Amino acid sequence: MPAPTLFRSITPSDLSPSDWHPFMVGAVAPRPVAFVSTVDEGRVNLSPYSFFNCFGSNPPILAFSPANRVRDNSQKHTLQNVREVPECVVHICDYAMVEQMSLASTEYAKGVNEFVKAGFTEVPSQRVRPPRVLEAPAAFECVVEQIIELGQNNGAGNLVLCRVVLAHFREDIILPSGIGIDPRKLDAVARLGGDWYSRSAQTLFEVPKPNRNLGIGFDQLPAHIRHSDVLTGNNLGRLANVEAHALPTSEEVAAYRQKPAVQAILQLGDAAQRQALMQLGKQLLESGQVLDAWKVLLLASPEA
Amino acid sequence: MPAPTLFRSITPSDLSPSDWHPFMVGAVAPRPVAFVSTVDEGRVNLSPYSFFNCFGSNPPILAFSPANRVRDNSQKHTLQNVREVPECVVHICDYAMVEQMSLASTEYAKGVNEFVKAGFTEVPSQRVRPPRVLEAPAAFECVVEQIIELGQNNGAGNLVLCRVVLAHFREDIILPSGIGIDPRKLDAVARLGGDWYSRSAQTLFEVPKPNRNLGIGFDQLPAHIRHSDVLTGNNLGRLANVEAHALPTSEEVAAYRQKPAVQAILQLGDAAQRQALMQLGKQLLESGQVLDAWKVLLLASPEA
Repeated sequence: MPAPTLFRSITPSDLSPSDWHPFMVGAVAPRPVAFVSTVDEGRVNLSPYSFFNCFGSNPPILAFSPANRVRDNSQKHTLQNVREVPECVVHICDYAMVEQMSLASTEYAKGVNEFVKAGFTEVPSQRVRPPRVLEAPAAFECVVEQIIELGQNNGAGNLVLCRVVLAHFREDIILPSGIGIDPRKLDAVARLGGDWYSRSAQTLFEVPKPNRNLGIGFDQLPAHIRHSDVLTGNNLGRLANVEAHALPTSEEVAAYRQKPAVQAILQLGDAAQRQALMQLGKQLLESGQVLDAWKVLLLASPEA
Repeated sequence: MPAPTLFRSITPSDLSPSDWHPFMVGAVAPRPVAFVSTVDEGRVNLSPYSFFNCFGSNPPILAFSPANRVRDNSQKHTLQNVREVPECVVHICDYAMVEQMSLASTEYAKGVNEFVKAGFTEVPSQRVRPPRVLEAPAAFECVVEQIIELGQNNGAGNLVLCRVVLAHFREDIILPSGIGIDPRKLDAVARLGGDWYSRSAQTLFEVPKPNRNLGIGFDQLPAHIRHSDVLTGNNLGRLANVEAHALPTSEEVAAYRQKPAVQAILQLGDAAQRQALMQLGKQLLESGQVLDAWKVLLLASPEA
C-alpha cells in the first residue's frame, strides 16, 4: 500500500497577501505574458503582465490584469492609461527579447517611454493609438471593452477585457499550412513564480486531442493492464483514449502472436513472459503505436 | 542594413472562427491549464480549460473560460454546472497526469463522471461540493462569483470568475522556505496551439526583477555598447538594468584593466582587442557577473 500523499491546505485569507501570492503565482504557471503598450494623452507606456490569457475566439477576447501592487496598493500606469484611452496593443515576447521586456517592467516615472528605456522600436499601429513593438513576433491591436475591478486592496486585480481588432504575426512563425502559429518558431517565454521564466519551444510534446472520439476510459481497461506496475498513468491514458470499435479483434491479436519478436517472448515462460509483453507494450505505446500496444498487452492477459 | 521584417496582418472578423482560432491560441501560449471539477445536482464533471489564469491575489481570483464550441456553438457541461451550482475545484496538472487529463476532455455524455473515465481518485472537498482530484499537485477550492458571457456565437468565451476559498499543495512542491511553489518540483504542463503541450520544469531560467530598481535604460548605454554587433538584446537588457549609482567608477575600471586576463587582451592591438573585450564582457554577463561585464565593456570604449 503506497504511503498517503501529504498536502498542505491553506485558506488564503489566513495568510498576508505577500505570503499567499507566491503560492498562487507559483502554482498557476507557466503563464503567458502580455507585453502591453498604452497611451494617455500622447505619452506612451509599455509594460508586461502575466495575469493574461485569451478567453474566446469569436469575438476575439484577450484579458490581462494590472493588479494593485501588493507592496503599497498603488496602481500601474497601464491601468490609468486604459481608463483614459481604452485601447492597447498586446504583444507576445520571444526568448530573444525577454531581458528587454523585463527591463520595461521597471517602475519608471509616469511619462517615461519604456520603448526608449528598454530599447524597442516603436512603430505606429493601424487601428489604435498606442504604438507597436516591432521586435515582437506577434501583436494584437485591441479595443478595451470593459475594466472589472476585482477588489480594492493591495493585490486586487483589475481585469481589462480587450477585443482584438487587428493582429500581426511575423511571417516566419506561421505554420507551413498558412493557418496558425508554429510553437517551435515562436519560442515564447512564460512566467512562473519568483524570478522564474520558461521557454516552451524546447520541451514541446503532442497529445492527440480526443475531440469527438469517445475512448473506452479507464473503467473499461482489462484489470491486468489497469493495475500493471509497468504502465504509467500516461500510458494508460493513451490506451483508454481508443474507441471500443477500434480495439483489435481476437483474430488480430492472434495474428500478432505469430510475430517473431512476440514468439521469442513467449518462449520465456509464464511470469517472465508476461512482464516482457507488458514492457514491449509500453515501448510500442511510447513510440505512438497504440493499436500494436493493445495487441501485445492483450496477449499478456492471464487468460490469453 | 537588415532586411525589413515581414508581418502578416489579419483582421479576425475577415477569417472564419475556425481559421482565426489557431492564430490566437498559437500565439497566446503557453497557457496554464485549469482542470476543473464541477457538479450539477449530484453528478460530477471534470474537464480541462486552457483559457485560464489567476488575475489577483487579494481577493484570490482565478478565471477560466469554457468557450462555446467553434464547431457547433454547443456549451460545455462545466458551464451548465457552474450555472446550477456555483462552485468548482481548479486543479493544476503535472506531466505525470497529462494523458489522463487530456482523456477527461473527451465529450462524454452529461452525467458521465470523468474521474472514472480518466482514472483519477475522487476525494471530497472541504469547502465546496465538487470533489477533488487527489493526483493533482495543487488544487483550489473555489466559489464562482460571476459568469460573463463574451458573446453568443460559436467560439464565444464565457468567463467564469472564481474566488479561492481553500487551496491544497502537495508538500513536496513547496519551496524549502515554506512560502511558495518550486517550479522544478511542480513540473506543470501548459497548452499551446494544435495538439502541442509544453513542460516547463526543464527550460526554466531566471531574470532578476527590476522591482524598485531604476536601471539606466538603453538610452543611457554608451554607443559602442548599444551598437555592438557582439552583444544581444538580452545582454543589453541586463546591462541597462543596472542603476546609475551602481555603475563602476573610472577608478574601478582602471583597476580592472590590471587583471592578467585583461592585460593579455590589451596586447592584441586596436580592433582585435576591442572585439576580444566585447566577447569577454558578453561571457561575464552571461555568467551573471554584470558589474565586471560593465568594467570590461567600458575598457572597450573607443575613448578608453
